Amino acid sequence: MVETNPNEIVVVKSENSKINTVDFDNLTFGRVFTDHMFVCDFEDGKWQTPKIMPYQPMTIEPSARVFHYGQAVFEGMKAYKDEDGKIFLFRPEQNFHRINKSASRLAIPEFPENYFFNGLETLLKMESDWIKPGLGNSLYIRPFVIATEPAISASPAATYRFMIICSPAKAYYNKPVRVLFAEKFSRSADGGVGFAKAAGNYAAQFYPTGLAQKKGFDQIIWTDASTHKYLEEAGTMNIFFRIGDKLITAPTSDRILDGVTRKSVIQLAEDLGIDCEVRPVSVKEIKEAAADGSLKEIFGAGTAAVISPVSAFEHADDVFEIPQLEASYASLFKKTLTSIQHNLSDDKHGWRHEVK
Amino acid sequence: MVETNPNEIVVVKSENSKINTVDFDNLTFGRVFTDHMFVCDFEDGKWQTPKIMPYQPMTIEPSARVFHYGQAVFEGMKAYKDEDGKIFLFRPEQNFHRINKSASRLAIPEFPENYFFNGLETLLKMESDWIKPGLGNSLYIRPFVIATEPAISASPAATYRFMIICSPAKAYYNKPVRVLFAEKFSRSADGGVGFAKAAGNYAAQFYPTGLAQKKGFDQIIWTDASTHKYLEEAGTMNIFFRIGDKLITAPTSDRILDGVTRKSVIQLAEDLGIDCEVRPVSVKEIKEAAADGSLKEIFGAGTAAVISPVSAFEHADDVFEIPQLEASYASLFKKTLTSIQHNLSDDKHGWRHEVK
Ligand SMILES: Cc1ncc(COP(=O)(O)O)c(C=O)c1O
Ligand SMILES: Cc1ncc(COP(=O)(O)O)c(C=O)c1O
Repeated sequence: MVETNPNEIVVVKSENSKINTVDFDNLTFGRVFTDHMFVCDFEDGKWQTPKIMPYQPMTIEPSARVFHYGQAVFEGMKAYKDEDGKIFLFRPEQNFHRINKSASRLAIPEFPENYFFNGLETLLKMESDWIKPGLGNSLYIRPFVIATEPAISASPAATYRFMIICSPAKAYYNKPVRVLFAEKFSRSADGGVGFAKAAGNYAAQFYPTGLAQKKGFDQIIWTDASTHKYLEEAGTMNIFFRIGDKLITAPTSDRILDGVTRKSVIQLAEDLGIDCEVRPVSVKEIKEAAADGSLKEIFGAGTAAVISPVSAFEHADDVFEIPQLEASYASLFKKTLTSIQHNLSDDKHGWRHEVK
Repeated sequence: MVETNPNEIVVVKSENSKINTVDFDNLTFGRVFTDHMFVCDFEDGKWQTPKIMPYQPMTIEPSARVFHYGQAVFEGMKAYKDEDGKIFLFRPEQNFHRINKSASRLAIPEFPENYFFNGLETLLKMESDWIKPGLGNSLYIRPFVIATEPAISASPAATYRFMIICSPAKAYYNKPVRVLFAEKFSRSADGGVGFAKAAGNYAAQFYPTGLAQKKGFDQIIWTDASTHKYLEEAGTMNIFFRIGDKLITAPTSDRILDGVTRKSVIQLAEDLGIDCEVRPVSVKEIKEAAADGSLKEIFGAGTAAVISPVSAFEHADDVFEIPQLEASYASLFKKTLTSIQHNLSDDKHGWRHEVK
């Protein structure tokens, strides 16, 4: 059954929902997908009519450029539901702008704003049952673009596919994480693509992260590739340090993702009267603060992880345990953020975007 | 029709060949593929029975990790035919080892040597008609591995697909190229994945290369990301500089691909009594040599491009034209290399690998 809806999206509904097969209390991140997906192809120099169709495998040439040259970018967003069943996005225009920034850097054509929002909102309304109310519950949304042109010369593709798939989620990490500060491996270079959500940035982290995991750590906090003296961000989170009562986080750059959660935390800190410095953070300073007891917290901030406290770090074989505070900034920001996201508190910055 | 051949590869032959539809005198690189492809899936912790089957689109989940996290590596090799119809590969063990080195860095399981060689040779024998004799003709071979697991958590996949597809080729560039020396953008970081043929490394170059093309240059020669003072390699070629009668090329590192053509040129230089220094090459030195006339040549070396002379470079708005020599090292190496590849000359290092 094909319908054309007022947004000029072609909608093909799935015959049956698989929602009853899903155990919403035991979700593994990113493994279960909802009944539908959004698809829009770039051909003949323009984005064609978008479609929403049953979530399903797709057919693609083995020579599609995405497989060979990694021309692929993505976003990560969440939809939340309040107790009245209203659906909200959190600062979605940030993700829209960022995916186009990522796309430009990877020589991928930008995606039109109305297609993005109409597609996303139409899809979310169709998948409303998949969005469960309650703090900690959300629908993780994955917009992404891949180069589909079947040609293996090393140059940008002429055809692309933009898609949105959705996966119900609980919080990504449910316990404090132990991290390694990078000493040898790097995530990105000056003049590179670190600021973009480029697919290749992530695979590059798997091997070093695997080594860290063998040593008993969950993640790596990346340092600058040139000197390894400055702390930058984790694989899927920006990082905040609390020394005394002050927060510190690295400035964004062409190496660091300009995280939506990060910029929201910086704003919330201001709202809450917490001093937050945005400046280079040296490994030395953090080790000294850990040694003299002034380092109170480290936490990650990201859409998937929300706010994720760090309980220990290692650098140059020195391990520092960070005692977990009862009244931490991490829990304060987590509560403040999720309350806004779930429509439980005031939204003075207009961050909530209701899907009507 | 399914046959099981002695290598335990399952072979499904295509019903018709499309070879008669191909104009071998007018080939665009990497657009036409032969009749068959090699496919081997990694599942349940091991590489399953390899298959050769008709070249065709494949079915893959939109959530396959390759689309989201760029877990993908590849190789580029060529098969050549001599006038007697014998098929040769050039140092294929180098590509085999390199794809596994790339795979390890991207947390992809290594591919077994016997599967690689049996698969490749069986495929090439089936595609023999696609390999045309004569210097300049070859069959470009693209082995690659992609992460197929349908899961979008940021971690290595549990399932992969290894494939080999083939495309008939003429030389990649047929005229000297004009290059820009990178001043702001970078290809790779220390501690990163620049030495790997990781898919993401290539997409990252498209945008800066596009800017260079708008300025009238074909390619970029990348410099070190930390200082932009040292010349490293081009997008798909290593780079040699000739000052006076001496060759210079940058050492390999974790930022630079250890090219098979590069190491062959270094060996041939020794054989031919040409002094070749492997050491950091500064932009300053090359500009000075260009200014005082001692810079005789710059050329790229790579499987696709073979040996590709550079006719001009730009750096910091200074453009230097490099007069093309009649008796250049570039043409000497090209002739020496292609003669070995096409079984037209002695092969004292045992580089030719006959496919029997
Ligand atoms: C590398 C990286 N840093 C930081 C973040 C956090 O960004 P955001 O808060 O926008 O989700 C993410 C993930 O989303 C990321 O992939
Ligand atoms: C980045 C890069 N450098 C150099 C080369 C040349 O290597 P090879 O001579 O092994 O083909 C290639 C391509 O193959 C490459 O992709």
